[in-house]
Amino acid sequence: MKQVIVLREDIDISKGKAAAQVAHASLNASLKVRNHSKTSFDKWMDNGAKKVVLKGENEDQLFELMSIARALDVSTSLVRDAGHTEIQSGTVTALGIGPDKDEVIDRITGDLKTY
Amino acid sequence: MKQVIVLREDIDISKGKAAAQVAHASLNASLKVRNHSKTSFDKWMDNGAKKVVLKGENEDQLFELMSIARALDVSTSLVRDAGHTEIQSGTVTALGIGPDKDEVIDRITGDLKTY
Repeated sequence: MKQVIVLREDIDISKGKAAAQVAHASLNASLKVRNHSKTSFDKWMDNGAKKVVLKGENEDQLFELMSIARALDVSTSLVRDAGHTEIQSGTVTALGIGPDKDEVIDRITGDLKTY
Repeated sequence: MKQVIVLREDIDISKGKAAAQVAHASLNASLKVRNHSKTSFDKWMDNGAKKVVLKGENEDQLFELMSIARALDVSTSLVRDAGHTEIQSGTVTALGIGPDKDEVIDRITGDLKTY
């Protein structure tokens, strides 16, 4: 099992800011899975809670991936920045997908490159 | 309330890898607080689950901050990289602290710079 977080590569944010956005996406998507299926969540956690950060081209791609994930009944969490610093308020920055089975996640994001 | 994640600045890892390490620290520290005090956790989540990524000088500093946090009864999570890529297995990369009250967190990491 794994979780992927798709981070937009077309916005200019620092490493720390990017990491915070990824952490938001990861935590929110993780809690959705925990609420939906504690067994899946525990299985993922017990196996190291694998997280992979992937490159997303732009906002449109994040929405497209979210639609595909939903069609496959995979939990997602889209993050919009509060915009206190660096970027405009409400900017979509990252999308958390899963955790779910590797093969299911790969059907959604198998073509994306590692960040 | 806020959570801080201290990321070592003396190790050479990509933005994506750094973000994954921060997400590990954030999720693990968050779940500790959730188990310990659901009220505190919910209060933090309901107010946007603020997360700030700070610069840590080196491994020693992360251990020192962890000791201080423990003395103040603040939850922490230290992340060691599995080392499949980029850095040596077992390398300490990040420390999640809290969520807890802003003033308590600032007593631990108030002197650190934003990443």
